[in-house]
Parts: sequence; C-alpha cells; structure tokens
Amino acid sequence: MLITLTTDFGLQDSFVGVMKGVIAGINPQARVIDLTHGLPAQNVMAGALTLRHALAYFPRGAIHVAVLDPGVGGARRPVLIECDGRYFIGPDNGLLSLAVGDKTPSYIVQLSNPAYHLEPISATFHGRDIFAPVAAHLSLGVPVSAFGERLDNFQRLALPKIVRKANERLGEIIYIDNFGNLFTNFQEHDLTGLPGAQFAIAMGAVRVAGLAPNYAAAEEGGFVAVINSWGLLEIAVYRGNAEQLSGAKIGDIVRLTVVNQSYPEVSQNE
Amino acid sequence: MLITLTTDFGLQDSFVGVMKGVIAGINPQARVIDLTHGLPAQNVMAGALTLRHALAYFPRGAIHVAVLDPGVGGARRPVLIECDGRYFIGPDNGLLSLAVGDKTPSYIVQLSNPAYHLEPISATFHGRDIFAPVAAHLSLGVPVSAFGERLDNFQRLALPKIVRKANERLGEIIYIDNFGNLFTNFQEHDLTGLPGAQFAIAMGAVRVAGLAPNYAAAEEGGFVAVINSWGLLEIAVYRGNAEQLSGAKIGDIVRLTVVNQSYPEVSQNE
Amino acid sequence: MLITLTTDFGLQDSFVGVMKGVIAGINPQARVIDLTHGLPAQNVMAGALTLRHALAYFPRGAIHVAVLDPGVGGARRPVLIECDGRYFIGPDNGLLSLAVGDKTPSYIVQLSNPAYHLEPISATFHGRDIFAPVAAHLSLGVPVSAFGERLDNFQRLALPKIVRKANERLGEIIYIDNFGNLFTNFQEHDLTGLPGAQFAIAMGAVRVAGLAPNYAAAEEGGFVAVINSWGLLEIAVYRGNAEQLSGAKIGDIVRLTVVNQSYPEVSQNE
Repeated sequence: MLITLTTDFGLQDSFVGVMKGVIAGINPQARVIDLTHGLPAQNVMAGALTLRHALAYFPRGAIHVAVLDPGVGGARRPVLIECDGRYFIGPDNGLLSLAVGDKTPSYIVQLSNPAYHLEPISATFHGRDIFAPVAAHLSLGVPVSAFGERLDNFQRLALPKIVRKANERLGEIIYIDNFGNLFTNFQEHDLTGLPGAQFAIAMGAVRVAGLAPNYAAAEEGGFVAVINSWGLLEIAVYRGNAEQLSGAKIGDIVRLTVVNQSYPEVSQNE
Repeated sequence: MLITLTTDFGLQDSFVGVMKGVIAGINPQARVIDLTHGLPAQNVMAGALTLRHALAYFPRGAIHVAVLDPGVGGARRPVLIECDGRYFIGPDNGLLSLAVGDKTPSYIVQLSNPAYHLEPISATFHGRDIFAPVAAHLSLGVPVSAFGERLDNFQRLALPKIVRKANERLGEIIYIDNFGNLFTNFQEHDLTGLPGAQFAIAMGAVRVAGLAPNYAAAEEGGFVAVINSWGLLEIAVYRGNAEQLSGAKIGDIVRLTVVNQSYPEVSQNE
Repeated sequence: MLITLTTDFGLQDSFVGVMKGVIAGINPQARVIDLTHGLPAQNVMAGALTLRHALAYFPRGAIHVAVLDPGVGGARRPVLIECDGRYFIGPDNGLLSLAVGDKTPSYIVQLSNPAYHLEPISATFHGRDIFAPVAAHLSLGVPVSAFGERLDNFQRLALPKIVRKANERLGEIIYIDNFGNLFTNFQEHDLTGLPGAQFAIAMGAVRVAGLAPNYAAAEEGGFVAVINSWGLLEIAVYRGNAEQLSGAKIGDIVRLTVVNQSYPEVSQNE
C-alpha cells in the first residue's frame, strides 16, 4: 500500500525520517513516497496546490498524508477524508481541500480515536503522533470509520478567480517553483479560442507575446509563456530564473490582453 | 530489515544515493530510511541528539548508520555498537553515544575486518566504503563479532548539565530546527512541580511567561515556550522564526526563574 | 528492479515525488533510489560526472534515469542507452555520456513510441511524461527495442584534458561538493611516480605541498590535497570549506609543479 508525505518540515531535521519509522513499525510493508517536504512554511495554499496537481499521478487507493500545520495542538481538527478511492490525512485547515475539489467525499472523519495514535501525543508534532500512525493503520486495512467520529464538512480553500473583462483577463501568480518559474491561475481552457500570438501577457514590467510550445522556443535569457505540467499558464525564462529576473512574487497580477481579436464577452462572475 | 541513515552529507551531491546503491547491491531486500542528511557539518552533538530522540520511533532490530566524520581516514575508529536490540554504526567520535545513553552495550566492535568493506577504501568516504557495506551485511544476518575485534569502550559525549540554584535554573540552547525553533536542554522533569505560569523564561532579551500547551496558544508573532516532540523545553514563535527574531544560537543561556514559589533546593551536581 | 533518479529538480517542489508516483503506478515492485536532485541547474557536466562516478556502486541491470534538461520540449532527443548491462534514460544532451565513457553501447533508442509515454505529454516535464514511464516499463521487462527507433550515435561531452608540460601539469576544478571540497580533473594515474611530498599544488593564491593520506593529516583550517572518493585530486580544508576560503569556482586552473624531480616528459596530446 502506497503512502505519500507532503510537509513543510524540510529535510534539515529528522522529523520526516521519524514519521517513516513510525509507519514502518506499524506496517513494515507500506511503501512511502515523499511528495515534497519543501513547502514554504505556513503557506497552506502551496501545499493544497501541490496535492491537487500530484494526485492523478498516483494509483487509486493511495494514502496522502499532508502536514503543514501552524495551528498544531490548537483548535483545528485532525481529519481523514476518503474521496474518489483516495485517502487524505492531515490538519483540517484547507490543505486537503483542493485535492478533493468539486468531488463529494464519501467519508470524512475526525481523528479522535486514541487507539490509533502514539501516546503521549506531543504538543508540536502530530505528524509523528497522529497522522503517521493513522496512515499506517489505514494501510493495514483498518476501516475509515474506526478512526473517530464522522464529520459532515471540512475546511475549504478558494483558488483566486480569473477576472474577465471585455478585452482582457486578470489572473495572478499562485506558485513559484524551485527554478523560479511563475505559475499563474490561468488554466488552459481560460485561453481557449486564443491561438498563440493573439494575446499579450503583462506582469509588472514584463511583456510576453503569446504562448510558446516550450521553453526552448524562446531565446536564451528571454521571458516565455507556456502551458506547464500543472496545466497552468507559466511565465519562465529560458535557461534563466523568472522569479529573480522579474522580482515577481505570489499574488502579483498577470494581465492577458487581446491583441488582434476580441474575447467573447462573458460575465465576470462565471 | 530496516537501515536508517543520518549524515551531514546534504542532498546536493550523490553521496547518500551511492551509499544506498552499495546497500542494495549487498542486500536487495534491505529497507533504507533517511533520518536526515542535513546535520550541520562538523556538529557531532546535533547528530548525537538526532539519533537519541529518533530511536524510540523505530522498531527494535533496526540498524542505525550515522556519518558525521570530519576525522575520516584519521585516527578515530569505525565502530558497530549493539545495545538494547538496536545497532549503531559510525565513527567513534561521540556521534553514537547519546543513543546508547545510560544503557550498557551488549557488544562493541571495531570495523577492522576488510571482508565486509569495499576495496580499495577511499581516504574521504567511509560511509560508502565501510559503514554502508557493514550495515548491509549485518542486515543479512552476519554476526556482530565477525566485523572485527571486540572493544570495551567507546567515545562518549556529555550533554550540557542544568545548573540549579535556589530560585533559578540555567540551561542552554542545544539544537535549532529548520523552523528556527530553539531546543533547550531542559527536560520535562526539570520543570516538575512548576505548573504553567509559575516561572519565567529569559534568553538574552527574550522573556516568556511559563509554558504554553501548544504554539497556537500564543499570539501570532509572539514568543512561546512548549514541551516539544523531543520532550524538551522549546522556545518558539507562533507563525514565525524564533532563531531569526531572537538572534539566538547554540550554547546561548536560558534562565528559568521562579515567580511565585521557590524551587525545591537541590544540589548543583545532581 | 532498481531505478535511480538524478535531476536538477531540487526537493522544494513535488516534481520528484510525482515521477515516483508514475513509476509506482506502472511497476509497484520497482525500487527507486535518489542519486541526487541537487545538480546545479543547467550544469550538464555536473550531472554527467555524478552518473559516471556512481555507476560502479549500483548492481548491473540497474536503470539510471537522469533529467537535467533546459531544452525540454525542443529539438534534443529523449533516449535510452544500454551499455555494459546498465541502462541510461534521459535527454540526449551529453548528460548520459560520461557514464558510457569509452565503452560501446549495445543499443541506443530514441524514445519515440507513445505507447510508453503518459498522454498528453506536457511541454515542460518529460521526466514525468516520458522518462519515468519508460523506466518503469523497462523494469517490467519491455525490451529496449520497443521504445522507439534505433539510433547509431548520441551526444558526447568532453572532460577537460590535463595539459602536460616538462615540469608541470595544468588541470582545473570540475566539481564542487556540498562541503566546498574542490574536485579537479587530475586522476590518480596522472600523479603516478610522484610520491607524496614531491610536487606542489597551486590554485590562485592557494599553495598545497603534495598529497595527504586524508583530511585529518592537515592542521585544522588548513588546505589539504587528497585523492577523493571519485579517484580525483581534491583540494579541501580540514574542518573547513575550501570553496569559501579560496573563492575558487568551476573552471579555475590547478597547477601541479614538480619540486624535487622531473616529470617524465610526455606529449601534450596524449
């Protein structure tokens, strides 16, 4: 049974390794894959996006544990969500919500049954004391309902919406990767009917003319826009770092302007 | 059979991956868990603390390989220590000693038998040439005594002691994690009989009034003290970085002062 | 079956984890070892050296996937090379060439058969969409010839050559590791017949007198030269960081001068 781990713990300390020890002690056969432990601390949106765009590449039945949890030990609930044959375990702070998306979970449970926790539970490390042991027991076949009382809702996070005007659309930077590539909230279908060179992209002082088929289509050191591996419009620099060159950061506005045709007029609150 | 790896190699280079290749070549069934490869270079104490506080979360029988070895190729001995059903492999420079703690090892051996090393042994990478192959052969059932001559001692590291005075106790910062949380050498039992708000914590200019049940009990950006996942008194900042905010570093003094009752008077050399 | 991964993706994002998900979905039994994901971005030579010096430590039959691919989606070909019982998968940009070295590949194939790719193929992440699924299918026993049309050549990278003069030899820094150790292109056999103290090493303002048996033979904080774990002459600082202390960088010249005997005179284009 496959368990993935997604955290902001970093790899400087032994936190991640200890979670794997807990899992191995409960289910020696469980296979653990690190999705990432490099989530920016406190950035729940980055974690939620990471899970959302990774899901499809893991087999159904996988157990996805995510821990980015500044409120550890406080009021937020530890939860397990079963949805579409996949399992999500973590704090109920929005982190798991974009992976669920529009689907309806088949079961949500608050992880309140101490039989599946380590004892005593520390104040600072529920990844080790609650989430890892729950994932390991679940991978052994313990039914979802055994982990605690059923819930009828969970915390949802809203992705920023595209603002649509007659001749332009406003999006924003929602994620920046290790290469400095700038991921926007424009999805491929937001660009439908707008062939390559027919719109211009503006972000601060940066201007890009339309979509390129890949990075290498740009000249070295030049800005380029592509549909990336998350299916999003990305602003990058060929053989360079767009974040550093542009100074852009999460939340910066990205403006798509029609150059030689009109957008079909649509309502702003689509 | 489970093998853990703890080093200061970092993950920039292929050193860790190559150790895993060596293990897989000798015992393809061995399962390897990275405890951490982010130990601060040359900081033997950080490595020893990491092992000490991870142990309990791994099944008995696990083989723990630790390499933080500035003296590689020099006079320090490569050793294997069996203690309480667990195995520790690494340089005899104190790194393995806090994991053993007060217990008496059942066997200590110097890794002098070249039959279980790679040949030739490099001058700079005993992790690959000695420690990884020894761990892999041990995981296959080779008896401890086969790896070299028996030793009757090993290098021990001393944890800094708490200084106890009539109305205060002096400890220090012994570890700083990736979040900037400051781990002190105060253990929970050092605070026994001192309920929550009845003592004050001072570290440089930082003042904290007593223990909180968790980070979220503080106001955002404020210093807070908790018992952390290592069972130690930790000074943190809720949704912030205590190391950066305080400028504190390893070895800085942390002073606990009784506010509204006296500590039981005890000798300083407990 | 063993699959290794070597990339410049870093571990901040989920790219590596997603590749492992793809592999696990196709062959749940495949074992994956990270060689490194910390290759300096765009530095094909660093990747090629890493593979070259790791190979011997992995069992024959292993599948080595390497992705450092600024030209992703452009003209460079995705390839699979079988050589000496090992398999190399990656972009044909020189990255795989030093691992092949002087040997003659038994089979080279362009990864053009879409039956073994994910669909649709993104413009930016062939690691996920081509290289990971090909490696997983290969580990299941799919024959090399099935992955696309046979090629009769692949892109080769040239290691910088040692320049040999009557009384000195000129090499250069070709890799710098996480500890700041400076790896030169001098191999052990370039020093043959030059016992320990009989030559001087100069690099910028740094002077080292001959080879030491190990780091610990130097005084603390002093420069030292050793034959390292890649079999290369390395300039290091005992308990210090040679890169920071010297300011050296990749490509800097390292000069070996004979002190008390002459080099055997050899032609420069050996």
